[in-house]
Amino acid sequence: QSNVTLYGRVDLSVGSVKDDGTGATSNDLVNKTRGKTVTRMFHGGDGGLTTSRWGLRGTEDLGGGLKAGFQLENRFNADTGASQDPYFRGESSLSLMGGFGEVKLGRSTTVYDDVRTLGQSRDVFNSAFTASANGVFKSGGDYASRFDNKISYYSPNMGGFYAAIDYAFDEKAGVSEDKHALKFGYKDKAFEVALGHQNEKDKKDKYTVLAAMYDFGSFSMSGSINRRSGTAANGDDEEYALGVTVPMGAFAFSGGYAYSKTKHSTGGAKDGKANGFALGMTYSLSKRTRVYAGWRDVEVKNASGVKTKDERLYAVGVRHDF
Amino acid sequence: QSNVTLYGRVDLSVGSVKDDGTGATSNDLVNKTRGKTVTRMFHGGDGGLTTSRWGLRGTEDLGGGLKAGFQLENRFNADTGASQDPYFRGESSLSLMGGFGEVKLGRSTTVYDDVRTLGQSRDVFNSAFTASANGVFKSGGDYASRFDNKISYYSPNMGGFYAAIDYAFDEKAGVSEDKHALKFGYKDKAFEVALGHQNEKDKKDKYTVLAAMYDFGSFSMSGSINRRSGTAANGDDEEYALGVTVPMGAFAFSGGYAYSKTKHSTGGAKDGKANGFALGMTYSLSKRTRVYAGWRDVEVKNASGVKTKDERLYAVGVRHDF
Amino acid sequence: QSNVTLYGRVDLSVGSVKDDGTGATSNDLVNKTRGKTVTRMFHGGDGGLTTSRWGLRGTEDLGGGLKAGFQLENRFNADTGASQDPYFRGESSLSLMGGFGEVKLGRSTTVYDDVRTLGQSRDVFNSAFTASANGVFKSGGDYASRFDNKISYYSPNMGGFYAAIDYAFDEKAGVSEDKHALKFGYKDKAFEVALGHQNEKDKKDKYTVLAAMYDFGSFSMSGSINRRSGTAANGDDEEYALGVTVPMGAFAFSGGYAYSKTKHSTGGAKDGKANGFALGMTYSLSKRTRVYAGWRDVEVKNASGVKTKDERLYAVGVRHDF
Repeated sequence: QSNVTLYGRVDLSVGSVKDDGTGATSNDLVNKTRGKTVTRMFHGGDGGLTTSRWGLRGTEDLGGGLKAGFQLENRFNADTGASQDPYFRGESSLSLMGGFGEVKLGRSTTVYDDVRTLGQSRDVFNSAFTASANGVFKSGGDYASRFDNKISYYSPNMGGFYAAIDYAFDEKAGVSEDKHALKFGYKDKAFEVALGHQNEKDKKDKYTVLAAMYDFGSFSMSGSINRRSGTAANGDDEEYALGVTVPMGAFAFSGGYAYSKTKHSTGGAKDGKANGFALGMTYSLSKRTRVYAGWRDVEVKNASGVKTKDERLYAVGVRHDF
Repeated sequence: QSNVTLYGRVDLSVGSVKDDGTGATSNDLVNKTRGKTVTRMFHGGDGGLTTSRWGLRGTEDLGGGLKAGFQLENRFNADTGASQDPYFRGESSLSLMGGFGEVKLGRSTTVYDDVRTLGQSRDVFNSAFTASANGVFKSGGDYASRFDNKISYYSPNMGGFYAAIDYAFDEKAGVSEDKHALKFGYKDKAFEVALGHQNEKDKKDKYTVLAAMYDFGSFSMSGSINRRSGTAANGDDEEYALGVTVPMGAFAFSGGYAYSKTKHSTGGAKDGKANGFALGMTYSLSKRTRVYAGWRDVEVKNASGVKTKDERLYAVGVRHDF
Repeated sequence: QSNVTLYGRVDLSVGSVKDDGTGATSNDLVNKTRGKTVTRMFHGGDGGLTTSRWGLRGTEDLGGGLKAGFQLENRFNADTGASQDPYFRGESSLSLMGGFGEVKLGRSTTVYDDVRTLGQSRDVFNSAFTASANGVFKSGGDYASRFDNKISYYSPNMGGFYAAIDYAFDEKAGVSEDKHALKFGYKDKAFEVALGHQNEKDKKDKYTVLAAMYDFGSFSMSGSINRRSGTAANGDDEEYALGVTVPMGAFAFSGGYAYSKTKHSTGGAKDGKANGFALGMTYSLSKRTRVYAGWRDVEVKNASGVKTKDERLYAVGVRHDF
């Protein structure tokens, strides 16, 4: 069948996790790790390189430089076989592409999320081992990485420069939830810089990120500065991330640091603070298969000074693409 | 893999909808459109040509003129990536085929639904823009287009004539829910006519439809007369639909009208009435990809004379097959 | 796409079932069959050869005798199109294989379940018609045939001998649920014998099975002895199964008998007893497609001497692989 490509990835790891935080939680598995080292299996997205997935995609040449394309991507937890929700959580989209750029309809990552990803792309491979993972970036816990009911326009590459915009339609009664995002960037072989912005009206939160990546040859670095501007009750966030990756033959080594501060403008509440360190290593058995080891140390303090999270996670795993 | 074909369709559109009806509804999105134009994205099945889907199918030659075949078809909402329920909602079937015709087991469309589809096949491409869509045909809201636990027999083509029968087993306690349906028809190159009947014992509703299609070359028409015979409490329906399609190069234009009347035999209740108009246009970018625009105007009055729906819908979209 | 194989099976049958048991049940469909013959469609797993499924699998040669492999398998009820839960219920795994054997991560059948399957492999084709199906083996209703969060090691074949071990990580708070299983066996062309053990700490149940299969040429036999050792409240089980299959050209005939006894050590409770007979026949239309007929008679008495189940099931069906 030439019209469709069936692809996917399975990522599984085994490791240990311990959380000395004291914040209340209803999460069964987090409770189990409170003050105690728990050895467990991770399904990639929670303690590995990437979330497991399978999908369908294809493009059709329509002539005259015009192309149609689609992508449908399911995400699943490979340790239990459970599908994530919604079914095509990763992507469910249809595109028309040409000299004018690309128009995409459906559910897919926001262009703001693209920039955020760029800013952490060298930070332990933008994985669950990324320094900002699991609570360091407050906005990571609340911004929407994908919009439903979205129409997007991606410009063509214009001498290295690019731009893109997202608009998600408002389909809920009683609340104005239309959302939009945009990005501008410049990219050449070894360097990329981009500015992204996302506005989620229903939550009254605005996100702005400046991110860059530079490949020095023997190593590459990425970094980002991110701000969330919320209501007086929500407070504002400032977030910083820095990452470095060093390839050595079939090996790649990487490290990262991330820091965030939540400022509350309402009466007297202190700032919440969080930071994370991470280190990782991959070894490529082939283009499609790599083994890896990673470590992540995350500390989150809320506005009352309570450590809601104080987690150390180690894991070794395998990632296989098909 | 020669044994299985992976196929599908993504259909997405953007448009506006307004409903001046006053009937109470708990549907959030309908409430949002009450007396107000809402611009939104549609997932094909709710404001486009067809429901998005992906599936697996194949046939095996068993020798001696005998074949085995299967089809599994998922339906999903492409605007959000959500799977419809059940998982293989479109079809989940196994067939044995030969000179005797076809015996099919599992879940699939009823043969009555086949005839109903024929009767609206030229009516804005049997899509969400079909004149009868969304409440004009009362039976469209209550008959089962597919049966679970179904065994079907489809006759071979006998000089243009064909027949088929469905029987769905009764698998619920405390209620007799066995259902059946049958159809008879005649088909040649340019003409098809068929009679269909469906009996759903659990709801005490019987449906009968007479439908035809004629291709005049420069244009083609379809039409149907449909009756639901229910209990005194359910009332009876009479439904009529007419559609025409005019191909012009890569374009196709289509229009349709549908009308229905629900008669209540119980004391003094007036008739419910509904009607719908629809117009649509498609432009084929290729055999697999077309863009389209459509308009639908639906008005539904209940037995108390209240307009429960008074909806106008416009949309432009893209449909891509793989 | 050479990296992935798309495969599956659809199994559907039609037959009748009657249950003269008197034990209370909340199962709607079982209630319907109480003292009454019900004709219905079965989805393979409940009255056919095997559960319907579709899946993705592949292996990659990594060089140096090392291979990577994955398997993702969905199970579904072909009579209604409903997916079983979790989504990749059948298997969700990633493997590294080499001269050392195989290490597998994720969700898959336990090695104890492998031995149990061997012991019934000639007993009506290890299907829903297997003599032990549906309540004869008490442990069949309570042991876990698959573990989530599992790491397994399978030895290579060592002159016919093999061994394997499963360990499933404990990921629930407030209960120690880590589980393990192991097996040892010997296999040559016509003979296989294996010992399996499974320990499910959370339920305080231990399972041990000894199973064998012998192919005499004109017929083959399988058998097993199985013990569950539980708490005083749970009691202990003893289970026995014997099966024979006779191939005759495109036909295969099979019969089986299974018996179980639950011993309660607590004060005065009698033993629960259950037994089942089964007969079946398959006819291969091709390597991928077979039609079949089967009969199963199951009787279950609880510790109070009440027949909770007294079921007779007949069905004819089709199974198609792709």
